[in-house]
Amino acid sequence: MKYADMTAAQLQAEYDKVAEAFDGWKEKKLKLDMSRGKPGKEQLDLVSDMLTVLSKPEDCVEDGLDVRNYGELTGLLCAKKLFAEILGCQPEECFIGGNASLSLMYDTIAKAYTHGLLHSEKPWSKLDTVKFLCPAPGYDRHFGVSKSFGMELIPIPMTENGPDMDAVEEAVKDPAVKGIWCVPKYSNPDGIIYSAETIERIARLKPAAPDFIVMWDNAYCIHEFEGDYVPFPDMLSICRQAGNPDMVFEYASTSKVTFPGAGVSVMASSVDNLKYMTSLITYQSISYDKVNQLRHVRYLKDKAHTLELMKKHAAILGPKFKAVLDALDQEIAPLGIASWKRPTGGYFISLDTMDGLAKRTLALCKEAGVVMTSAGATFPNGNDPRDRNIRIAPSLPPVAELEQAVGVFCVCLRLAALEKLLGKEAAHA
Amino acid sequence: MKYADMTAAQLQAEYDKVAEAFDGWKEKKLKLDMSRGKPGKEQLDLVSDMLTVLSKPEDCVEDGLDVRNYGELTGLLCAKKLFAEILGCQPEECFIGGNASLSLMYDTIAKAYTHGLLHSEKPWSKLDTVKFLCPAPGYDRHFGVSKSFGMELIPIPMTENGPDMDAVEEAVKDPAVKGIWCVPKYSNPDGIIYSAETIERIARLKPAAPDFIVMWDNAYCIHEFEGDYVPFPDMLSICRQAGNPDMVFEYASTSKVTFPGAGVSVMASSVDNLKYMTSLITYQSISYDKVNQLRHVRYLKDKAHTLELMKKHAAILGPKFKAVLDALDQEIAPLGIASWKRPTGGYFISLDTMDGLAKRTLALCKEAGVVMTSAGATFPNGNDPRDRNIRIAPSLPPVAELEQAVGVFCVCLRLAALEKLLGKEAAHA
Repeated sequence: MKYADMTAAQLQAEYDKVAEAFDGWKEKKLKLDMSRGKPGKEQLDLVSDMLTVLSKPEDCVEDGLDVRNYGELTGLLCAKKLFAEILGCQPEECFIGGNASLSLMYDTIAKAYTHGLLHSEKPWSKLDTVKFLCPAPGYDRHFGVSKSFGMELIPIPMTENGPDMDAVEEAVKDPAVKGIWCVPKYSNPDGIIYSAETIERIARLKPAAPDFIVMWDNAYCIHEFEGDYVPFPDMLSICRQAGNPDMVFEYASTSKVTFPGAGVSVMASSVDNLKYMTSLITYQSISYDKVNQLRHVRYLKDKAHTLELMKKHAAILGPKFKAVLDALDQEIAPLGIASWKRPTGGYFISLDTMDGLAKRTLALCKEAGVVMTSAGATFPNGNDPRDRNIRIAPSLPPVAELEQAVGVFCVCLRLAALEKLLGKEAAHA
Repeated sequence: MKYADMTAAQLQAEYDKVAEAFDGWKEKKLKLDMSRGKPGKEQLDLVSDMLTVLSKPEDCVEDGLDVRNYGELTGLLCAKKLFAEILGCQPEECFIGGNASLSLMYDTIAKAYTHGLLHSEKPWSKLDTVKFLCPAPGYDRHFGVSKSFGMELIPIPMTENGPDMDAVEEAVKDPAVKGIWCVPKYSNPDGIIYSAETIERIARLKPAAPDFIVMWDNAYCIHEFEGDYVPFPDMLSICRQAGNPDMVFEYASTSKVTFPGAGVSVMASSVDNLKYMTSLITYQSISYDKVNQLRHVRYLKDKAHTLELMKKHAAILGPKFKAVLDALDQEIAPLGIASWKRPTGGYFISLDTMDGLAKRTLALCKEAGVVMTSAGATFPNGNDPRDRNIRIAPSLPPVAELEQAVGVFCVCLRLAALEKLLGKEAAHA
């Protein structure tokens, strides 16, 4: 029975029951974490052979190049080929970085700020105002990069097909708007795949700023946990065909393919953009870790072989997502107090509570020993105007723990809703 | 016989002989490289066991932490302990980075520029002029970082004891002077160890700029190639005792201990500085490569064990330096046309030609197939006012090749001197 259809007495009875369940969970003194998209130990163990794939000096030579030594700032050709095949772009459009694509993204923005981008009239640090479009709900670390440079974050509503393109097209008429953050496949947190039309409209943007950039974080490019690999178009070609060859910087990494903390990242962009960026990065580094690049290439081999590995990740992740979705279907759906997406890839489930209940729900979770991503984190400046979006990250805990954590979450969600419906919010305000 | 003491006829006869030798070298069509301080293959092979020191999942757990996963932005505690022992500072004063200390240095300057340092009144990007002190001859990549941010590079003469401290003390009275680049042990390229007095005077500086920083690149902290390890004081303590606890950032790495392209770097500074820097870096990265950090700790173990490894590097490097110095002693010293230092550690030999002959000497080397660091590279803006300093990097070529390269170099040095003494410079101007 939906809570909305209950009488006050029924709600009170339900409240008493749920509050008791909540106390029961609290007594267990759990310490569970669904806050971050961290792969679990079982996933890390999948790729243990990578640790020893380079084990002798002669293993460390590729194309006549000793990868142990200095040099090759833009990365190994074989690594460029691997990422180019995965992303559908060209090897010469790939710059291979260190273990974190976030660092490549940060450095792109940092260099826009200190030096300007290829088509900048001046460094962004010399401008009074820089605005950045933040489709929301979105990824808090993206917003954090922009925020850390003092940019004004402009929220853009997310739709079923990606960012609301009417809003984007309107916003880019402002020359202070310098870019947009996008996670185009299995968006963080909604798990949405941008539609072909959305992608095309992004590529065809005519921003007032000549140095507007699309930060295309293809973090989940091969990260299906249900069903077959879903092909995804190469944004570099689409932007080129749309007459905006230098507008997009794409990022990806093996953080959720091999080791989260010791993977390899890539920045893909036009040859002109990479040439310009390399001319700046040459002061920052002699080269990234090519031993680890070669380790990855020798281990992952090619796209087909990498997709086989992703099937193994899916076999571990799929049941975790199912555990969460099943619990929500059984315990929450009948009550009509929340809605959520059903992603088939990525690392998150995005859930909307009734308005004004995200913070309260997560405070209750914390009280019962379950840490979740902070309420509001998926919105620019941490401010979810309707205080309703919650990002659930089911990847880290083992299934048994996860079932407990979801149990706690469902109880907290119900308790928060009941508090509101019974007018009990004041007690904890 | 010194060239200065020769008659015109003797010089001409010598010229004919040396020109013939030069042509002889040219015919060999050599391709030799003494341009960069790259370790040779034999050195890389010393540490092959590191490739497999972590080979199973259970190897990747340290202090209960799975190093394969995300997290621990400031680095593994065990890595901090290792570097702290080597540098003589405290583990909590260490921030462990990726494979390149240059990136940590760049990021420090970049953050001064975009956000300011702990004691900055405003970000350096908001200032009209930023000046940086560049002891010269020095390291071109240091100067390059400052240059890439548009700073004005102020040359400071190098003495036998480090930078000319009278000049430094005078220069820091200018509030636009924001810092100084230092390689305090086996300076690049002179191989000088800063004297205790120089170090003390640096620590006691009273710069007009409240956010003046000493960029203390301790790149060669354990890099003796002759004789025993030379203890070196902890600059962090000295600055603290001098009342300047936040003035110094120290850098080091294992680039010339393990793999040049796949080592681990450290930034050491006051706890307050690291806390501030970490609050900025948290937007840039979730964590550096902790798998590689743990590989290093398990392989290098501690300072004593690392110093044993450095003895093996010395056994390879020592003969290379000796080959160069012997050739210079035999072929150049009697002619009185150049002077050079005799370092016992580091990666370079710094040589001064007669005024105005560095460029010409290196152009001749290039003609004969030997690549050297560009003339002028050791000075700010690539401008060696006396055009005389040449940095010789003997580490990469095998000894047999090195002997050839030095043979070529000596001939080119003589030819350039003879051209000058005979007034033949116009021909190639």
